[in-house]
Amino acid sequence: MTYDLVVLGGGPGGFDAAVAAAGHGLKVALVEKGFLGGTCLNRGCIPTKLWLGATSAIDELHNQARMKVASGEVVVDFPALQARVTKHLAGTRKAMVMQLGKLGVELVEGMGRLAGQGTVEVETADGTRTLTSANVVIATGSKPIFFPGLEPDGECVLDSDMFLAMKTMPASLIVVGAGFIGLEMAQVAHRLGARVTVIDAMDRVAPLEDPEVSAALLTIFKRWKWDVLLDKRVSGVRTADGQGELTLDTGEKLAADIILVAVGRGPTTDGLGLETVGIATPMRRIEVDDRLRAAPGIHAVGDVNGIIQLAHAASHQGHYVAALVAGKTDAPYDSGPVPSVLYGAPEVMRVGRMESEVHLADEGCEVSRAPLAANPMAQAHAATQGFVKVIWAKGRVAGITAVGHDVSRLTTPATMIVRQGWTADDLHSIVFPHPSLDESLLAALQAGRTPVE
Amino acid sequence: MTYDLVVLGGGPGGFDAAVAAAGHGLKVALVEKGFLGGTCLNRGCIPTKLWLGATSAIDELHNQARMKVASGEVVVDFPALQARVTKHLAGTRKAMVMQLGKLGVELVEGMGRLAGQGTVEVETADGTRTLTSANVVIATGSKPIFFPGLEPDGECVLDSDMFLAMKTMPASLIVVGAGFIGLEMAQVAHRLGARVTVIDAMDRVAPLEDPEVSAALLTIFKRWKWDVLLDKRVSGVRTADGQGELTLDTGEKLAADIILVAVGRGPTTDGLGLETVGIATPMRRIEVDDRLRAAPGIHAVGDVNGIIQLAHAASHQGHYVAALVAGKTDAPYDSGPVPSVLYGAPEVMRVGRMESEVHLADEGCEVSRAPLAANPMAQAHAATQGFVKVIWAKGRVAGITAVGHDVSRLTTPATMIVRQGWTADDLHSIVFPHPSLDESLLAALQAGRTPVE
Repeated sequence: MTYDLVVLGGGPGGFDAAVAAAGHGLKVALVEKGFLGGTCLNRGCIPTKLWLGATSAIDELHNQARMKVASGEVVVDFPALQARVTKHLAGTRKAMVMQLGKLGVELVEGMGRLAGQGTVEVETADGTRTLTSANVVIATGSKPIFFPGLEPDGECVLDSDMFLAMKTMPASLIVVGAGFIGLEMAQVAHRLGARVTVIDAMDRVAPLEDPEVSAALLTIFKRWKWDVLLDKRVSGVRTADGQGELTLDTGEKLAADIILVAVGRGPTTDGLGLETVGIATPMRRIEVDDRLRAAPGIHAVGDVNGIIQLAHAASHQGHYVAALVAGKTDAPYDSGPVPSVLYGAPEVMRVGRMESEVHLADEGCEVSRAPLAANPMAQAHAATQGFVKVIWAKGRVAGITAVGHDVSRLTTPATMIVRQGWTADDLHSIVFPHPSLDESLLAALQAGRTPVE
Repeated sequence: MTYDLVVLGGGPGGFDAAVAAAGHGLKVALVEKGFLGGTCLNRGCIPTKLWLGATSAIDELHNQARMKVASGEVVVDFPALQARVTKHLAGTRKAMVMQLGKLGVELVEGMGRLAGQGTVEVETADGTRTLTSANVVIATGSKPIFFPGLEPDGECVLDSDMFLAMKTMPASLIVVGAGFIGLEMAQVAHRLGARVTVIDAMDRVAPLEDPEVSAALLTIFKRWKWDVLLDKRVSGVRTADGQGELTLDTGEKLAADIILVAVGRGPTTDGLGLETVGIATPMRRIEVDDRLRAAPGIHAVGDVNGIIQLAHAASHQGHYVAALVAGKTDAPYDSGPVPSVLYGAPEVMRVGRMESEVHLADEGCEVSRAPLAANPMAQAHAATQGFVKVIWAKGRVAGITAVGHDVSRLTTPATMIVRQGWTADDLHSIVFPHPSLDESLLAALQAGRTPVE
């Protein structure tokens, strides 16, 4: 069969590319070897959000109880929650299949690989199918990576996929890797009563964030009685006597019911036949040009191109490539600032430039900030730790980050403000609602500025 | 004493006008007869948000329990909550006093009234003080209004001020008036176990909102087993035998522990000496021109000018008048779209034009919408009722409203989008975070449009 576009991978990037291309009138096939929705829907963002949502009453109660305003107990039935997650994911996938059908996108189930330019071979349940197409989009995503000795065994040492599929929540948990994935899962385990230990080789949690954000998170985690071990190297993890056993490079050993290894994810490029079209992956990722092109007629979007590992970045790239292939645009790809969010309580949001970036001081950048403690909504939820911080470059907003209760709600307005490069004068153009946590963003934008050092 | 500016009233409008004027270098006096912070802080938005925050675990638990994912009980200690509210308000007022002191604004405690142009007399505890100033800002706010027969008696018939000062939450509550004030308070009473009845003379709840929003709210209230009586006229309320007794104009009687009368608020203009400067108030409110001027040298901001009864509108007007008096601007006042928010669960947000406005169909306006049911964050909180609706005028976004769980977070981005009059093309300029409730706004913006009928 011949198509205008064949997409390899049905995660956020691939699915949205296929849907958008069909919307532009192209004849499209979408090849998926596993579940539509990819990691984000099936083994990532969505299940963790359902976990966080289902346990949010526990966190809210805890905060009010600390103020002696509320008491009681919230018990989450973890198997029931997992059943609800499973049902939600199946329902979402079903809706996605219907959407493809409605748009005339052919869903080809099986492992696809390139077989020379313009040809994709798919191993389906009914044998090999050959699809020809002038354009191919590779959107095969990423998978957890492991350093030697840190491989999951599926018993007491789990990766994030296995962790999300657990039937019971452990009473004790060691998380190796203090990035967003590990921290969201640790938060849920904590709410459900697990004793939590977090280990990272870096000297702070959430090491990609502003150091002050890391410090604020650490303060909260310590109040929760987490053991947070920083600057520690793990030499091995294994299951021994029905428990997870972790060995540091100092020889010290730690044990917990479950060890979650969440040290990062890497592009999925194996078995894609990239060599048949001359794409090499010395850095594992598929390198792309300014139009997300990896080779003539071949684009790569999402985690697999290594630009940024976020579902909404993949979707945005997918929409762009669909427009490009359909001839609706020929401009280079420009995402603008891509926000990132840690969900839960506290939350973290970041968009644009950060104070910790090199050269910022040389450029005469400035920083302004506001604490959440002064905000009535943070007070109402008895969760006043945290702050909003703004980076200014040449008098314009260049970056915003925040940590604290519900700060994810600042993400979209912050992205708009950074994208548009607001000056101090632009702030007066918008009436912020009162009371709202959003006013902490306004307060940070209006606060006195100091030079970045 | 002579000042550059004397402000009557220390609520959001007056306080912000005073602070902003001092920031512009003016010599300012702020006259307040009661508590700094006005209705919003002391008897309005802030106490209700503290109530809603303190009880949010109850709502979250309820939703998850309905899904059979969680069980348990959250008990809020209402006297402890009231003590926390009292402490928070006192702390906030103290911080406001310190801010005034730091900026050199003189706080004059007492009832102020105009005594001819440029003169304000204040009845203080130490006698009458006369302040002279070329400029006066009237920011005396509003107070609850009552129709004959609906006056509160402070026993079982309360206005919103009295309701917020209660020592215990009643077991049964009748709310007269289904506007935002009554609905937020009714929600808290419901969470704390009260049997709730809501009565309105209009044919729908939240009658200022889009009719579809009213319908969505009604569905949720009915699921909560509220008695919602619409199109009903109340002829009288009174305390009888230690209970609140309400009589409809049909003669039918209803009883509850407490009756809350929340039928609206009117400008506070009595005793201000307006006649000494030639300001008449035939419509009760102080009418202002396009620079918020009521008479030479006299401006009115906030509820008292009757433009819009919202704290953030008052603040924005206060900032404007301060800049005007300081000579920093001479442009007419332009607030842009002013958003309104109902907090709680569900929430309502609205900004800009509404589908129900007259003439919209004549102008060829269009509407697009998205349900919350498809959003994973709404799913995570098991609260999927609701929608986002967008009004388009001449291809640009002219209004946005939403109802449902956590939709208040759409307010600030929606205000920015309406203010800037986005077209469909502008949507691609911003990467929305995934997953987020914000994506329901994006979905509504991208959905197919139909003409307003």
